[in-house]
Amino acid sequence: MSPAIPSLSAAEAARAIRAGRLTCESLVTACLERIAARDGELAAWAHVAREAALAQARALDRQPARGPLHGVPVGIKDIFDTADMPTEHNSPIYRGNRPRADAAAVALLRQAGCVILGKTATAEFANMHPPATRNPRNAAHTPGGSSSGSAAAVADHMVPLALGTQTAGSVIRPAAFCGVIGLKPSFGSINRTGVKPVSDTLDTIGLFANTVEDAALALNLLSSRRIPDFAAKAAAPRIGFVRTSRWKDADASTHAVLDSAAKRLASAGADVRDAALPAAAEALFDQQGLIMNFEAARALAWEQSRHREAISARLLKRLDEGWAVSREQYDNALQTARDARRQFADLMRSYDLLLTPGARGEAPLGLASTGDPLFNRVWTLLGVPCITLPWGSGPQGLPLGIQLVSAIEQDTTLLAHAQWAATALG
Amino acid sequence: MSPAIPSLSAAEAARAIRAGRLTCESLVTACLERIAARDGELAAWAHVAREAALAQARALDRQPARGPLHGVPVGIKDIFDTADMPTEHNSPIYRGNRPRADAAAVALLRQAGCVILGKTATAEFANMHPPATRNPRNAAHTPGGSSSGSAAAVADHMVPLALGTQTAGSVIRPAAFCGVIGLKPSFGSINRTGVKPVSDTLDTIGLFANTVEDAALALNLLSSRRIPDFAAKAAAPRIGFVRTSRWKDADASTHAVLDSAAKRLASAGADVRDAALPAAAEALFDQQGLIMNFEAARALAWEQSRHREAISARLLKRLDEGWAVSREQYDNALQTARDARRQFADLMRSYDLLLTPGARGEAPLGLASTGDPLFNRVWTLLGVPCITLPWGSGPQGLPLGIQLVSAIEQDTTLLAHAQWAATALG
Repeated sequence: MSPAIPSLSAAEAARAIRAGRLTCESLVTACLERIAARDGELAAWAHVAREAALAQARALDRQPARGPLHGVPVGIKDIFDTADMPTEHNSPIYRGNRPRADAAAVALLRQAGCVILGKTATAEFANMHPPATRNPRNAAHTPGGSSSGSAAAVADHMVPLALGTQTAGSVIRPAAFCGVIGLKPSFGSINRTGVKPVSDTLDTIGLFANTVEDAALALNLLSSRRIPDFAAKAAAPRIGFVRTSRWKDADASTHAVLDSAAKRLASAGADVRDAALPAAAEALFDQQGLIMNFEAARALAWEQSRHREAISARLLKRLDEGWAVSREQYDNALQTARDARRQFADLMRSYDLLLTPGARGEAPLGLASTGDPLFNRVWTLLGVPCITLPWGSGPQGLPLGIQLVSAIEQDTTLLAHAQWAATALG
Repeated sequence: MSPAIPSLSAAEAARAIRAGRLTCESLVTACLERIAARDGELAAWAHVAREAALAQARALDRQPARGPLHGVPVGIKDIFDTADMPTEHNSPIYRGNRPRADAAAVALLRQAGCVILGKTATAEFANMHPPATRNPRNAAHTPGGSSSGSAAAVADHMVPLALGTQTAGSVIRPAAFCGVIGLKPSFGSINRTGVKPVSDTLDTIGLFANTVEDAALALNLLSSRRIPDFAAKAAAPRIGFVRTSRWKDADASTHAVLDSAAKRLASAGADVRDAALPAAAEALFDQQGLIMNFEAARALAWEQSRHREAISARLLKRLDEGWAVSREQYDNALQTARDARRQFADLMRSYDLLLTPGARGEAPLGLASTGDPLFNRVWTLLGVPCITLPWGSGPQGLPLGIQLVSAIEQDTTLLAHAQWAATALG
């Protein structure tokens, strides 16, 4: 087996399979070998469906290609229901849980000829209490979370593509920490049926990949959004550089990387101007957590009433905070979000893209915390599409990233511009 | 056992239990007797949890009251997960399905001392293919749907309170057809975790009750919204009478009932003026179905790919229609909804309440169709709170109702005014 196989992007691998230069079975085998070699250290996987994945791969090798990702293995965050493997939410309450049906997103992947390779490690109920997953770039550091395993598995080339979810910063942050592409599409892009809810207002299914093209193909498959014409020469975008009021909470390396990205993108022809968030959008830094906690407290009502002792102290504290929020406070926060979305839509008449930090800095040392979602809160609550591109590195040599943001439902445009930016950054 | 027990409202029954004049066990027994006597004809229940409900009732009788609905039996639409009874969505695909956890709303009810009496019959996946449920007012007619069993069970006094869901018109319409109160709260009022999704953008948990007070108590328990001060003298509301562009699609008896309700409410002191929906809101009559079908097609992706033959022809047609909608059409519909919500909020600066039809007329003859959700589509997509109050009757002597609507999150105000209106209508 070529050791290079797992380094193929999803699109490259699928093209090789369609061209008869690669079999799905050998691709899956290579991924499984990589997992066998590396996952003892990294713990990116909650469950590897070795036999089922190989059987699925062999079946797919006998069929005509069902689409541009036919034969591609995918990792699924372990809060998505899967009918043929456990779904445990990293909680003892769900040990051995085997749902009746696949989540809608999993069913769509299978239907398009993707192989479900297994379930990736998640923070408890996609919240803060971390799994044992380590950062593939430096195993002493967190990979971020809550989609810890999906980010680590894609970064370590155990699988070319993985699904995660973002409620605060659970896609963009771990992607940035692990040096991969993370895409949080517009709210509602990918159907959430069969995904364990944290917050109905915020939960958004996102993607981890190593190329913008892979993210675009997977988003198309899962959301029916158009794939950008990557072959066309893209016009240089109008970019708003949004430091936000929390710029001081990003570290010096993040400041340096963002500033130099802005310069590079301007040199490549983009119209880069400093931009400020509207007042209501700035307020979402504080309102996002309130909404998340209020809703999470209710979403986990059964677990609290029946299995309170099996919930981590860290999560219980959050849930108790959620119960302490009044309905009036919560309704006010929702109203602020509605106002912010309107103001943000107005702002985006002047920009194709915003450039802004996706994390405070590189992945923190240790596994106790998955890091701070501060620079993700506003965008998740706005519901706008975000992508992080790996660029530069921090004081410990760990990856940094830049975050690009577009207007609501402009995911295809965001991906086109992200490809342009990735090329411009080099 | 007094035959009058099942006719008690939830609040009355709970007060009697707290005062020691009634036991929870005798209340549950009376409900079970009513079901035994009547459900052979009405088929309102998919599952009656006889032994579990009695055991729960006896346990509650030994405890201090946990809240204002302690000891009250509740019926749960069979698309809500229940850990101790089947959850079958009226689909052979889910025959014998026993989820791991209770839906959040079910857990909150249990925690507040309510007894889960069983699961009520639903249209297949809360869509259009009806259950065998009959209208308690005239068994030759549909009770409406998709929350057919919840409406019928409350109307027939088999249970004082029931949960349903509305995606198009699945709470307000069956409540109107069966002559009970139906409350569809503001979108997001009651947490949807563990409820089988049809459409993330639309699905709203609602309530069936025989009094406004019961609806208010249950909404408070499930959403943390305030209970109106029913004892306070309510000011007469400013009411907009909204016939909508579809007024001609309501029948003559609905015209007559709405017109006379407007007059009565004005006589009682309300400032009643004719009002028109904003243009974007009028457009939602057409956009709601498009959004629902697009999302339902994806929400049921697993069922379609694995069990297509077990889905009704009627639902498959809807799902195929959903797949035929492009992402661009769908995004445009969402944008129209956003515009409509903004315009509607402006309109509601001038009114406390809108008066509008909740259904085209009385319950249609036969069980083949659950009726037309036309007059519910706009309000569900706006996300605003709606209540139907039984008033008047149609040419076949079946109940009619009026629908009252308030601004987003103004559920407590809506309930206060609904009580005022119920009194004014007499």
